[in-house]
Amino acid sequence: MEYKFAETVKNLNPSAIREILKYAADPEVVSLSAGNPAPEAFPISDIAEISARILKERPIDVLQYSTTEGYAPLRTHLTDYMKNKHNIGRGFDNILITAGAQQIVELAAKVLCNRGDVVICEAPSFIGSLNSFRSLGGKLVGVPIESDGMDMTALENALKANANAKFIYTIPNFQNPSGITMSLEKRRILYEIARKYDVVIVEDNPYGDLRFEGEHVPAIKSMDEDGRVIYAGSFSKVLAPGIRVGYAIAATPLLAKMIVCKQGEDVHTAMWSQIICEQYLASVDFEAHLAELRDLYRKKAQLMISLIEEHLVPTGITYAHTQGGLFVWCRLPDGVDMPSFCKRAVIDYKVAIVPGNAFLINESDPCQNFRLNFSTPTDEAMKIGVARLGQLAREVIK
Amino acid sequence: MEYKFAETVKNLNPSAIREILKYAADPEVVSLSAGNPAPEAFPISDIAEISARILKERPIDVLQYSTTEGYAPLRTHLTDYMKNKHNIGRGFDNILITAGAQQIVELAAKVLCNRGDVVICEAPSFIGSLNSFRSLGGKLVGVPIESDGMDMTALENALKANANAKFIYTIPNFQNPSGITMSLEKRRILYEIARKYDVVIVEDNPYGDLRFEGEHVPAIKSMDEDGRVIYAGSFSKVLAPGIRVGYAIAATPLLAKMIVCKQGEDVHTAMWSQIICEQYLASVDFEAHLAELRDLYRKKAQLMISLIEEHLVPTGITYAHTQGGLFVWCRLPDGVDMPSFCKRAVIDYKVAIVPGNAFLINESDPCQNFRLNFSTPTDEAMKIGVARLGQLAREVIK
Repeated sequence: MEYKFAETVKNLNPSAIREILKYAADPEVVSLSAGNPAPEAFPISDIAEISARILKERPIDVLQYSTTEGYAPLRTHLTDYMKNKHNIGRGFDNILITAGAQQIVELAAKVLCNRGDVVICEAPSFIGSLNSFRSLGGKLVGVPIESDGMDMTALENALKANANAKFIYTIPNFQNPSGITMSLEKRRILYEIARKYDVVIVEDNPYGDLRFEGEHVPAIKSMDEDGRVIYAGSFSKVLAPGIRVGYAIAATPLLAKMIVCKQGEDVHTAMWSQIICEQYLASVDFEAHLAELRDLYRKKAQLMISLIEEHLVPTGITYAHTQGGLFVWCRLPDGVDMPSFCKRAVIDYKVAIVPGNAFLINESDPCQNFRLNFSTPTDEAMKIGVARLGQLAREVIK
Repeated sequence: MEYKFAETVKNLNPSAIREILKYAADPEVVSLSAGNPAPEAFPISDIAEISARILKERPIDVLQYSTTEGYAPLRTHLTDYMKNKHNIGRGFDNILITAGAQQIVELAAKVLCNRGDVVICEAPSFIGSLNSFRSLGGKLVGVPIESDGMDMTALENALKANANAKFIYTIPNFQNPSGITMSLEKRRILYEIARKYDVVIVEDNPYGDLRFEGEHVPAIKSMDEDGRVIYAGSFSKVLAPGIRVGYAIAATPLLAKMIVCKQGEDVHTAMWSQIICEQYLASVDFEAHLAELRDLYRKKAQLMISLIEEHLVPTGITYAHTQGGLFVWCRLPDGVDMPSFCKRAVIDYKVAIVPGNAFLINESDPCQNFRLNFSTPTDEAMKIGVARLGQLAREVIK
């Protein structure tokens, strides 16, 4: 039969990243294109021990249906932890455990957007979120990011021009793909602008705990006085992404609608995953684990930067300095064809990188950037990969 | 702030079931309201053993990001199993692993429905699916079910009257809540009608393996010659619901859009859950496990029926015979106020049952039914619960 798809998904296609990742499956290809945490960062033996214990002591909790809101001890633990450590969560807030932070972003659009309503996004931004807004009929309006976060004048203009804007989507720390962190001052302005134009803020913070340099910047949610901010936290980068656990902290009426919608999506988040997170927080020194992670990523980032300085900077490629996260955002000199550079990298030089236009609201807009990941590859792979990119750069940049 | 919700979710509220379940949390209340599989049916030691093994042998597979389509060995295993055992899956089909069958139903609506498009449902039907269609702007049109499944004349009339119908949603085996199974003849007619009106069929089959009586009826998907049927399978009732694993078998173009949308919802299904399923199928005698499940549910259903015959039938309550699944669908005599009967049951008699109108497209439509579950309560709880219902029935039915 001929399928008649919904208007919203008709033009929704697998992202450009996926095409690159196809090549990356070739064992000869060095992948600098992933967004995976370092596998050596997984606390495997702790998780194995906790798993054995919970399957012995409370197997029914692991295997039976549970409530959509999430595993109660995990909700309690996270509520206290986020309040104490980050001053996140007030009397009007509540918490929902989700299948990764991705689900929070999707649920926010589901409960807030009619078809055609505007979502304000950073440009560039995380492709998974952009596609999820698209799949629900959200119209994306991009606001350029500067070295200290969104351009606030452009943000206000975008809100002025789009009365049907429902929320602002931001990744304030070590943004994917740019690596940029929004300054405290801009966070305050962002909150005030959101209040002025009466829109919600979705604060997606998967990388906040991975700061290996510089000063911590308080979350926008910590400034939230009127229940305007939906905070999206995640265990993907600090414990393990394969378990798919995230948590939304948001005002109770917002969360109530998100809960009804989540019930219709997956009933609740997988219980083994939730109980592993709860027991990990309760029985392992989480802060020590985070400190180890930061040490690991600091070393990997430093190696990546030194390789970029050695092989790419001399050819005219520039990069944005980052203080955390998993990525370095590089830029080819004007006049160099970026998509063809990325394609040649993987086909001729067997090194996979992500073309920057994959993160644009309109993939066909001009773009000179590409994204390098330093968390997934081994040191050896990084050395080989960046050296090969350097060879290609010397060949194509005159 | 005042939240401006999307039109689709504005009137979406937690279901009536949830209100009942709130009372059911009271330890004095006997719950006959759940839809949970029997906890004694969980193969706890097999799962614990498999879990220890996979966390030892392939921890990175369990913990790292994976592909949206699902864990490749599980996809292969299920493809073969469903083809060999149920003749499901042809050359044009593919398979997607999901967070329970609930996600399949939701993704089907997401890829097929524009706001206001019609979804044809059995009346009554599973509230979780109905809410999920509502959350995406689907307009529900109900088709009454008879003792052998949907009324086919009413189905054809509904399709004639709604040119914007996009799919027919059916639970053909031991339907929730009615317990009814669609006959082979009606399955053939349903497929022909769907073809005539060029709509998709979503065949939700969580209970198919739980037949404890009568002859197996082939799946509608086994008749699918033109890629019109999305088959939704689930491990929730045959292994464990807390792991949240389902699988969609559908034509590749349909599945491709569902995959892009799933990526925007949760990236992929939790890996521990997927690998547990795969290893369970590969290393345990699944057919023997299913046979044990059927024995268990046969006994529980027989006990429930004998209790209904003893305590409820003499008061004028009738029930529909079922050959499998988890539920018995009962009916109060005309003139008895069903919602108040259910409310008094839980408040005055401490026994929780689900009012039948919770499964209607319009909850305020007249309804004399209530649903009893026999899989979750112990034998003792069933005896106490149904006896209490009998007391109430004798009191209110004159």
